[in-house]
Formats: sequence, structure tokens, C-alpha cells
Amino acid sequence: MTEHQKQMTDYLAAFVEEIVQAGVKEAVISPGSRSTPLALLMEEHPTLKTFIDVDERSAGFFALGISKNSKRPVVLLCTSGTAAANFLPAIAEANLAQVPLIVLTADRPHELRQVGAPQAIDQLHLYGSHVKDFTDMALPENNPEMLRYAKWHGSRAVDIAMKTPRGPVHINFPLREPLMPLLDPSPYTISDTPRRHVHIYYTHEVLEERAVKRMAEQLNNKKGVIVVGSLDKKELEPALISLAEKLQWPILADPLSGLRSYGDTDDFVLDQYDAFLKNTEQLGQLEPEVIVRFGSMPVSKPLKNWMEALTNTRLFVVDPGAAWRDPIKAVTDMIHCDERFLIEALLKEIAESAPEAWLADWQQTNSIASEVVREVMENATSLDEGKVVDVLRTALPDHAGLFIGNSMAIRDVDTYFAQTKKKIKMLANRGANGIDGVVSAALGASTVTQPMYLLIGDLSFYHGMNGLLMAKKYQLNLTIVLINNDGGGIFSFLPQNDHPKYFETLFGTSTDLDFTHAAKLYGADYQQVTEIDALKDALDQAAYHKGLDIIEIKTSRQANKTNHLELWEQIAGKMAGE
Amino acid sequence: MTEHQKQMTDYLAAFVEEIVQAGVKEAVISPGSRSTPLALLMEEHPTLKTFIDVDERSAGFFALGISKNSKRPVVLLCTSGTAAANFLPAIAEANLAQVPLIVLTADRPHELRQVGAPQAIDQLHLYGSHVKDFTDMALPENNPEMLRYAKWHGSRAVDIAMKTPRGPVHINFPLREPLMPLLDPSPYTISDTPRRHVHIYYTHEVLEERAVKRMAEQLNNKKGVIVVGSLDKKELEPALISLAEKLQWPILADPLSGLRSYGDTDDFVLDQYDAFLKNTEQLGQLEPEVIVRFGSMPVSKPLKNWMEALTNTRLFVVDPGAAWRDPIKAVTDMIHCDERFLIEALLKEIAESAPEAWLADWQQTNSIASEVVREVMENATSLDEGKVVDVLRTALPDHAGLFIGNSMAIRDVDTYFAQTKKKIKMLANRGANGIDGVVSAALGASTVTQPMYLLIGDLSFYHGMNGLLMAKKYQLNLTIVLINNDGGGIFSFLPQNDHPKYFETLFGTSTDLDFTHAAKLYGADYQQVTEIDALKDALDQAAYHKGLDIIEIKTSRQANKTNHLELWEQIAGKMAGE
Repeated sequence: MTEHQKQMTDYLAAFVEEIVQAGVKEAVISPGSRSTPLALLMEEHPTLKTFIDVDERSAGFFALGISKNSKRPVVLLCTSGTAAANFLPAIAEANLAQVPLIVLTADRPHELRQVGAPQAIDQLHLYGSHVKDFTDMALPENNPEMLRYAKWHGSRAVDIAMKTPRGPVHINFPLREPLMPLLDPSPYTISDTPRRHVHIYYTHEVLEERAVKRMAEQLNNKKGVIVVGSLDKKELEPALISLAEKLQWPILADPLSGLRSYGDTDDFVLDQYDAFLKNTEQLGQLEPEVIVRFGSMPVSKPLKNWMEALTNTRLFVVDPGAAWRDPIKAVTDMIHCDERFLIEALLKEIAESAPEAWLADWQQTNSIASEVVREVMENATSLDEGKVVDVLRTALPDHAGLFIGNSMAIRDVDTYFAQTKKKIKMLANRGANGIDGVVSAALGASTVTQPMYLLIGDLSFYHGMNGLLMAKKYQLNLTIVLINNDGGGIFSFLPQNDHPKYFETLFGTSTDLDFTHAAKLYGADYQQVTEIDALKDALDQAAYHKGLDIIEIKTSRQANKTNHLELWEQIAGKMAGE
Repeated sequence: MTEHQKQMTDYLAAFVEEIVQAGVKEAVISPGSRSTPLALLMEEHPTLKTFIDVDERSAGFFALGISKNSKRPVVLLCTSGTAAANFLPAIAEANLAQVPLIVLTADRPHELRQVGAPQAIDQLHLYGSHVKDFTDMALPENNPEMLRYAKWHGSRAVDIAMKTPRGPVHINFPLREPLMPLLDPSPYTISDTPRRHVHIYYTHEVLEERAVKRMAEQLNNKKGVIVVGSLDKKELEPALISLAEKLQWPILADPLSGLRSYGDTDDFVLDQYDAFLKNTEQLGQLEPEVIVRFGSMPVSKPLKNWMEALTNTRLFVVDPGAAWRDPIKAVTDMIHCDERFLIEALLKEIAESAPEAWLADWQQTNSIASEVVREVMENATSLDEGKVVDVLRTALPDHAGLFIGNSMAIRDVDTYFAQTKKKIKMLANRGANGIDGVVSAALGASTVTQPMYLLIGDLSFYHGMNGLLMAKKYQLNLTIVLINNDGGGIFSFLPQNDHPKYFETLFGTSTDLDFTHAAKLYGADYQQVTEIDALKDALDQAAYHKGLDIIEIKTSRQANKTNHLELWEQIAGKMAGE
């Protein structure tokens, strides 16, 4: 036992113990040499749960999935060099999606930086503006001040990551050889003095009574709409419904708002605005005087276009994270108040609801669209993308989780996942909306909510395929519904679709992969289904099978586009009174 | 046709045409929406060759492989968001390995930045200190000044990337919708005025005659050693041999120096120093007065330790890239002169070679080690990692390329790949030495050199598996020799191997994957071989098969370690005269 090893062990164990005390329960570790002491000290910790993921890109998203779903700070660890660079996609997503990750990178000590040493890249500020905070730690020492320093940084990192708006923090640890810590006896059991930890008190921002009153005046007796985008706060669901009820306003609820599947259906919650807001000529009577928006901007492009075209509407954006998420730049009132506090205060102040007929008009329009969708779904005889979502909606058990892929999958859910009485936890990577890392994020989320389902397209599935190793390794239980339209389905909806030259080369980008082999590689139960009933059966079977299930449905990009267009046309026709 | 589209087309076509004129022949494109006009204009260009790679991480390394092997600037393009973040691992490697990449990212225009728009992350300085230069372009315009500006940045990017030390540059293009360029007629055929391009003159740094004389004086009649690490300059191979001959000094030649396989064998080139420099007690007569080092630091740790322990040796580091790649911090003379110029000048100035017996002593020691290795290889009856390298060395056809994985593969090659009369182009990612991206880099390199082989371990293969899609898509011809020791073999050589607690969990990290499924997924010819003759046969067959071949050899991490240790012990014994 060298003095160096003792110093390193005491210092790093103090840090690890402190982050655990501050609320970290899981660490996702990518193996490496330089990170050896941190990895071993995490593995040795009596309560910290570790996951080992060889591919750092997958590891990053796996940690993100755990954290997104549990709302806990989750630790990521890797060794020095390009390993650390592989974390960037997940970190960029975590930063925009406000997911608290504690990213630890092992580094060469100062004397091995910029000298051409192996596996040494410049790790200082490696993640740039994509983390909330960066610290390059001192080399390990174990005098009282430096042990306090290590612990202090543990608490501080968790605090910064968890404080609104949540997000990733990066701590870089320079470490010298020899890298073996002392584990016998465990550093967590031989503390001489009782360890003291920082108690962290999280606050929330509130608005003065006067300001609440002023806001309420703007809502009283107004034609208003509540728009709720991705908003991962279950506690807000009843509050938002109460607010809508008090105001007699409709809520335009994104699938990720939680409101389409919060445990009950509700007349205030509208779920077909994506379809009916396209028909701008029929919307005269629906023009609001006020909009109050919560969460991020919903996925629906027609909703965005409609909001953008409103010139006389007062737009309140409620965002305690102060992220200025307002891509249409139409905000008139920016409020960083905690949503729950604001709603509770407003409920006391609001005196008058909207004029009669206002809510009913909205509900009626939504009903027209809903009925068309319901009819189309009921009469569907083949398994197109819409019907896949519809079947999934029916088949999902109460309290299940549904992770939704980006690009087409989230849009299909927006169109076809109507309100349900079931409690379904909907999750997606909607910070930067990438197709990367979705598989790993869903697997991470599956460690928190069970059963968990993933709806994903083939390109996104291919992109994240390495992540499936974690399912095999930890016997994770996830059912993947893989919509395989053999390429980039969303591009069929974009202008390049009308230009056949290079379309398939650059945008269709068929991978032509037979995913049965991927299923075998990772030990998944695999079925390809072509009929509606077969999908129902496959989902039933998957519910009884613990482990990874892949249910693949081959669809046609062109048919999907045509079906969407036909649906929208029918809705437009009904709205026009045809 | 809108004015916007015309402006965008003219502006971007001018840029694309200019980078092609400046020397870009290949572009690796990851599909996306925001990058649509650049992707289409590259596809439309009459001479630019494009590769479409859905996974941006793989795409980055694929481009790196082309550029590393061709020494040409290669373009990388992706859309906005986390897509761009996926390039970072390849960029960090390119920066340290001095590989000229032109990295183009499409971005939201200013009005869609920091407003919560989809797929928008902060792309300014996204790659931080890992690129040589960053430019955020102006929005497209097509007045004469802005067309000159676009072209000017094309030339400038290639110039900066190609100027010593080469490396990646990043250009970010904000682009507005609609994103369709005008391709009919092609913008490359309808130029009104003859296009003018910048002619770029690349220079090299030379040393004053006086300084060369002064250096030569330090080499005259001295006991010296030439150390050559990774140095990807074929033109230096004869020059280095001439220098060694003139000085009568040995060359300690890393596998990536090119000197072990430059088309001839040579007595000056020593290839077993990794084995014999371990035996520090037997090296008394080999202590040099001077070392002249070229390229990066060799992979051999015993060489590094030996050099580090020399206290009275003058160490010249020749590095035109001024990268200060001297992890032992022992340099006494730092020379940024172009190597060829320096050697030519030195050859004229050097008057006296080393004292007699100096070279012979080194050669004799190398022979002792070589003979032991040769004997062990000749008597080998089973296919351990060393024998795999030995068989590969014999089987490789003249003028083949060999891409070498990091971690164990490169070390096995260092030990077992003795000099050969064949010309074999050896390549590896030795900037940051990551195990990531090796598969894609080898595939990229295979588009330049044929036939191409890849020697790689199972973790690195798994990490880069997504890259294999490019082999399937473009029918690339690569033979992968996959050494599967089911986990991280190199950790068996590190201190943690003696601590069984957590070793398999954190360092062994067996993936337990049956790679036959991966081979099927990507349409590879696959064989698993267990016998020496079977490996020879498999390599023979692969030579006749165009496309992807995977030859898997399952080895034992522990046996590999034991074999290495036994070999080194035998060599030590022989050196001690036993």
C-alpha cells in the first residue's frame, strides 16, 4: 500500500460517498484504464447501483434515460480520450431536455497533457456550452482540506445539476498511476470520524401576489387556450385540468404533456389539434385572445404555424427553467414562476371563465377530427403506421411507460394516440430531437418504469443498435415496436420528396437490414407481423416475456404519407361541413 | 423558383466547387433535413465522390480513414443538432493524428437559435479546441462579394486543414427554409463568368545551414539511436535508412513507422526493442549519447521507460507539426523542420559515423530477441494472438494495407510483426488511441488501398459495428481478422488483474456476443477458425472474395498474457547468456 494509493482512495471515496448522500443512486460506467479508481470505488460503494456499458455513446443515453424517468441525478463515468467525446450527443440532449447528469471523466494528470501521451485529448471544457458547469479537479490528496474539497464538489455538482433548469455538469479528474485504490478494507466502512454531508435545499421561484393578480386579469372572461408541450411533471396534471375547468378553456395537449394519458379522459383535453389546425379557413371562431403555454413547444407543426399566424393574441410562456423556448418568438409575457405555484395562485384569483360557446366550439372541432380518426382506425384492415399506434394505445397496460422515437414515431403518436383513461408515462428525447440514442434512453428508462415499450423507426433503431447490449447483459425488460419503412420516412413529407433525383440516395437511405440478425445477436425475442391481429397477439406475448422483445412491422413510406394526407383531407371535409 | 433558392444555390455551389478545386475529392454525408441543399449540391457535383452514412459517429471515422490513407482533405457533412455532436470522437482523433477533415454542419439560422427550435443545439465552437479553426458562415446571398466570400472560405478551409500540422476545420452553415436548391440546370454548368479559384501553395519549414551544422556536430562520432514512431510519410523511408547508414546507428522502428514493411528488409531497422528493452540490467552497452526521434512516440512502453530513464542522453525531437509530442518530457532539442529537408541536409554535414561495435551490439541484441520470437512462432501449434499476427504477416499480399486496432492489437503487432520485404501500408488511429471508430476508419481506408485488412479485438469491433453498414452499402472490400478474447484483453496486463474483486465486471467486460449474427446482418462472409492452417486457408479465401470478410479467432486473455510473459522471459534468459 503506497501513500499515493491511500490519498487517492480517501479523496475519491469521499467524493463518491458525497454524491450518493446528495441523491445519486445509479452510475453508468464505461470501462477504461485511467478511470480505474473511480470505477472500482463506485462498484465498491454499498448502495450505489452500477451499470457497465462498453460503448460510451450508448452509456450516455442510458444514463439520460434513467435520469429522465426517475428525475434523479445519475452519474456517468468514462476514461480519458475519445471515450469522453462519445458522451457529447447525450450531454447535448440532456442540456436541452434539462436532465441532471453528473458526467465524470478521468484524465491524465497535468504532466501528461499536451505532451503526446496516449489517450489524452484536451478534456477541459470538452462539452463547451452543453453543460451547466465544468470543474477540473485537483490531484488527489487526503489532508482535511482536500477531503472537504472533494466532498464539497460532490454536493455542488449534484446541486447544480438538480437546480432548475436541471442539466448536465462535467467534472474532470486528473489521476496518476498507480491507479489501484485500496478496497480492503472498504473505504466506506473505515471512516475515523463520522462523515458530514451537505444538506441541499431545492427552492422554486414564485411570483408576487400583485403580479399574479395582474396576470389573472388578463385571463378573466377571455377566449383563451392552454397549450402544454413536453412537460415531465406528473404533479401538474390535475392542476392544469383545474385551471382549464376554472377558465373554461381547452387544453391543447402534446402527447408528452402527460395529459392524454394521465389516468382519466377529460373534455378539456384536446388531442386532434394537429389535424384540425391545418384547416386555417375553418378556424375563424377559434381565434383566442390569450394563450398560456406550459412546457416546451409541442411537436405539432400545424399548431406552431397557427400560433405564429395569430397577431392579436397575448402569449404567456410559463417556464421556470428560463430557457426561452419560443421558436415562434411570439411571447408577450415571460414567466419563470414554478408552474404549480402559479396555477394554485391563479385559481384563487381568476373570477370569470371564458364566454359561453368558446370551449364548446373547440371541443366540437376536436370531436369532428377525433371521429374521423376513430372511424378510420376502426375500419382499418391493414397495419399502417397509424394503426400500429392505435393498437399500441389499446394494448398498453395501465401504468406502462412508452418511449417514443423522434422523426416519424412522435408525429404518428401525435396524430393517432388519442386520450386514454389509462396512466401511460410517455417519454421522448425532445431536447434536440435526435434519432440517436433513443434505444439506450428507452433501456435506461426501463430500469425505472415497468413495463416499458419503445416505438421507433428503423433508422433510429439502427443508429442506437449497440445500446441493445445492455438489455442482454442486464436482462432488461423492454418491448420494441419497430416500424420499418426502410429508411427516413419523414423526408417523404418534405419538399425534396417531389424531386426524385437523389431522393433515395440522400433521404430515403434504405439500410436494407434484416433485423432478425440483430435480434439474435442481442438475444431478443423477435416477431415480424403484418396483420393487425398479429400485432395484438405479439404485444400480448411480449407482456408475458421478461427480457427484450422486438416486434417489427414493415410499412411503406409512401403509403404512410398517403394515409396521413387522406386522413387530413377527410377531416378538412368534415370541418367544411361536407 | 424563388429568389431565396437561387441565392442559396449559387452561394453553396460556389463553396462546393471551390473546395473541390482546392483538392477535395470525397465527401461523407450523413442524411438530414437542414443539410439538404449542401447534400444535394455535393451529390450533383460532377467530380465529387459521395458516401452516405446514416450514423454520424461512423461517418466521422469513415472520412478520417479516407483522409488518413489518401492524405487528401475529406469533407464531412451532417444536419443540425446531436447529429453534429456525434462527429466529435473522430474530430478529436483527427486533430491529434493530424488528419485534414473539412467538417460542415448545417445549422438553424440565427432567428431559430436559442429559441427552443427543434434539432437546434449550440453549434458555435461545438468542437472546441479539437479543430484548428471554426467559422460560422453568413446566410446565403449571391451578390459578387458574398459569392467570393463563400469561395474564399472553401479555399481557406482546405488550406488550414492541409497546412502542417494538418487537422480538422469546422464550418457551420446557417440555412433557411425552403431548403431545396435548384439543380435543373446544374449550377455547375451554367456559370456566367469563368470561375476563378485560389491556388494554394503549401510550404515546408526548413532550418538554416548553421543550425544543421550545429546539429550534425552533435551526431558525429556519437553512439546514437534513431527512434521512429507513427509517421505516415512514405517518402521518408529511404531517407531514414540513408541517415542510419551514414551514422551507423540503429533505427528503433514502430510498426506504424512504415519501416518494418517498406518494401525491403534492412539491418538498420530493429523490430524487437519492445522485448529486449525490458531487460534493463542487460542494456549497459546500449546506452546512447544521442537519440533522434521522428514521428509520434512509439507504442512500446518498455521503449518509453528506457528513454525516460536515460539521464545523459541528448534527445532531438523532429516534428514539423510542433505538437510537442514528448510524453516523457526529455527533449533537449526541439526541431520543427520538415523531416526530408533535415535528413538531406544532415547527410551532407555528417562526417563521422558511430564508434565501431555500437551498431553491432544493438543488432545482436535484436537478433537474440528475433530468434526467440521466430522459434516460438515456428513451433507454435495453436493459434494464440501472437501466431495470428505471424500468420497475417506471412499471408498479406505485397502492397496490401493493414489497419491495426488499438489496445491489444497494436501491441501484438509491435511484438510479432517482424520486418518483411513486402510493402505493407500500416495504419492505426494513434492520435488518441481510442478503440472507437476503428471499423469505420478501416473501411474508409479500404476505399484508397486494396486489398485492405483490419486486425481488431472484440470490444473495439463491437464499438464500431454500426460502421459495417458502409461495407454492405458500397460493397467495400475489407478482410477483418477479429481476435475475440471476449472482453478487454489489455486489462490483464494492468495491476487490476491481480485484484479479482470486480475485475470481470469492470475490466474483463465480456460482451458474450455471437458475431456470426453481426456478419449475417451486414452480409459478410464469416469464418471462425481455431487452427493455424485454417486461418491461412481463410485468408486465402478472403483474398479471392470481394466484399466484407470476417475471420474470427477466439483466444484466451489469460493465455495471451502468459504467452507474452513466457516469450519475454525466454528473451531475457538468452540476453543474460543462459
